[in-house]
Amino acid sequence: MSKPETIHWEGGADGSLFMIDQTLLPTEFIEREYSKGCVEKVWEAIHSLRVRGAPAIGIAAAYGVCIGLQPVLEEMDPAKFFAKFDEVVAYLASSRPTAVNLFWALDRMKEVAYQVKELMDCTQTFHPREVANRLLMEARAIHEEDRTICRAIGKYGAELLPDGAGVLTHCNAGGLATADYGTALATFFWATEHGKKLHIYADETRPLLQGARLTAWELMQHEIPVTLICDNMAAQVMREGKVQAVVVGADRITANGDTANKIGTYSVACLARVHNIPFYVAAPKSTFDLTLATGDQIPIEQRDPREVTHGFGRQTGPDGVDVYNPAFDVTPAKHIAGIITELGVISPVTEENIRKVLEN
Amino acid sequence: MSKPETIHWEGGADGSLFMIDQTLLPTEFIEREYSKGCVEKVWEAIHSLRVRGAPAIGIAAAYGVCIGLQPVLEEMDPAKFFAKFDEVVAYLASSRPTAVNLFWALDRMKEVAYQVKELMDCTQTFHPREVANRLLMEARAIHEEDRTICRAIGKYGAELLPDGAGVLTHCNAGGLATADYGTALATFFWATEHGKKLHIYADETRPLLQGARLTAWELMQHEIPVTLICDNMAAQVMREGKVQAVVVGADRITANGDTANKIGTYSVACLARVHNIPFYVAAPKSTFDLTLATGDQIPIEQRDPREVTHGFGRQTGPDGVDVYNPAFDVTPAKHIAGIITELGVISPVTEENIRKVLEN
Repeated sequence: MSKPETIHWEGGADGSLFMIDQTLLPTEFIEREYSKGCVEKVWEAIHSLRVRGAPAIGIAAAYGVCIGLQPVLEEMDPAKFFAKFDEVVAYLASSRPTAVNLFWALDRMKEVAYQVKELMDCTQTFHPREVANRLLMEARAIHEEDRTICRAIGKYGAELLPDGAGVLTHCNAGGLATADYGTALATFFWATEHGKKLHIYADETRPLLQGARLTAWELMQHEIPVTLICDNMAAQVMREGKVQAVVVGADRITANGDTANKIGTYSVACLARVHNIPFYVAAPKSTFDLTLATGDQIPIEQRDPREVTHGFGRQTGPDGVDVYNPAFDVTPAKHIAGIITELGVISPVTEENIRKVLEN
Repeated sequence: MSKPETIHWEGGADGSLFMIDQTLLPTEFIEREYSKGCVEKVWEAIHSLRVRGAPAIGIAAAYGVCIGLQPVLEEMDPAKFFAKFDEVVAYLASSRPTAVNLFWALDRMKEVAYQVKELMDCTQTFHPREVANRLLMEARAIHEEDRTICRAIGKYGAELLPDGAGVLTHCNAGGLATADYGTALATFFWATEHGKKLHIYADETRPLLQGARLTAWELMQHEIPVTLICDNMAAQVMREGKVQAVVVGADRITANGDTANKIGTYSVACLARVHNIPFYVAAPKSTFDLTLATGDQIPIEQRDPREVTHGFGRQTGPDGVDVYNPAFDVTPAKHIAGIITELGVISPVTEENIRKVLEN
């Protein structure tokens, strides 16, 4: 099987969007087609996590705008055309209310639309297909930029991984969360594509098991050796000398390098420290939030207790039990050996080094 | 609801054994009755983990012998009676081939049987009911001794837990694994019965979720505040200052204090060390194996990968994925602040202190 693409577009403005349905992995591999103006289905795919991961959501939403405009490709009244555009953008923005990349991608689409509109107002011309094509180009650009960023992260990160190393990762910071190459997993893809041998240990990542369902699956598709473990086995695997590095993704990184990521990441960082194993974070520049001084300012979202007690078709905790289910944790910068970005590796992780690399 | 008893016997030699069916917890609470000579059902209960935990298995097997003898309570031929006894003992010994307490309990029953037989041979008398009564007394003694040991562990351990403390535990070292009071959980029961307030954090304990299914349930029955967490959340709970001590059980402790226990225990010990939280092991004297110098000599059993990939009633890992699924890990003595036994607390954990306390 060829390496699966999380998202791709086929054809012109009246073409189709294809996305892997991630809710069915790893037992079923289905690419769903979105076309013929059915923007509702794109909305539903984002809303119900058929597509997930901040960059992938942004790309899906940008292409979603193109799908939403398909019913008005012959609309010669610009007012009606742009009314439809605004409606589609507002609608897609409601699919995942807290996803930063979603709004960022839709804003880029809006900017392009308004630039084109302004130009057409000046020249007193209006060609709906031209506007739609220009918007499809922007969606493709967002997609392509993500690919470039992920490949740069992969290249910089791969240099840190010794040939023959065992590497542990947590959750899914892979191609399924981005255009097709990932952040943490990009370092594994690049290293192995360039001749290094790696063996990956994938934490299953309770409660939602993204490591078991997505990371293990994705690495198997790339024919990279992977061993699935429960989260509580990471320490034992480290103690047995099987792990020479840890690489994880990030959801938000503050000015001092403190890193919010999927719950359990901080645990892995502590265990890596006890076993003297370097712990790396792989994340694009867009993940940094320099308006926050330290990780203490990142609020920890609490999620539904049923994710823990009723996760996979069977009740596994007592009725009415109190559950603590934080979505994320924050790993202090002092536990992080380096942050791998598309602009280079930040190491040691200090406020000064972060600004230096990002402003490069 | 009154506090449930894992195992109890009602009546005389022709009475009944009652055991909670632990495979149905926490969604169903069912006490199964074993009587009328149906030793096959006792065998099945041990074999299929309806009763689990080393001490509880030993007690169940001892009572199982009494059940097995019920068909011969009127048998006046001593040869036939003792042939039946030997058959029942051998049969029960085959229920869980690696459970040390099972063999130990059956050996005690054999010793009693042979003593009585010898005495009756001398006096040329034979009363099957008398022999059966004497064996039931021995089973009750094994049961009662376990209760006494657990209560002593509870008392010694409770002294180590500050009033108002948050305490984290892993897996189930509770009443369900013993007569009714547990080892690690005994310290919580004793402390709260004697006026201290505690809040317990129970690791769910992948892959078999004994923490979620059994520990959380058991503490709720005792009305001790408990919060269920995924294993990978322990570090975050510690970082938030919610945990002042960790208490876990043990499967085997070597001469230097290295402790084998459910997979994930070593991870918790590392996290406790990083957060400067005392990590205690609670275990009876019978858990010590002084023939082994260090934990390196304890083989790590590997279990079925399907426990990890098919554990929740739905497949959660890809077909054919490589899985590492060790049943246990070994926590080095240096991470253990103290070992709580029925003879007192061993602290600091050194070979010398272990011998001193155990030989007391």
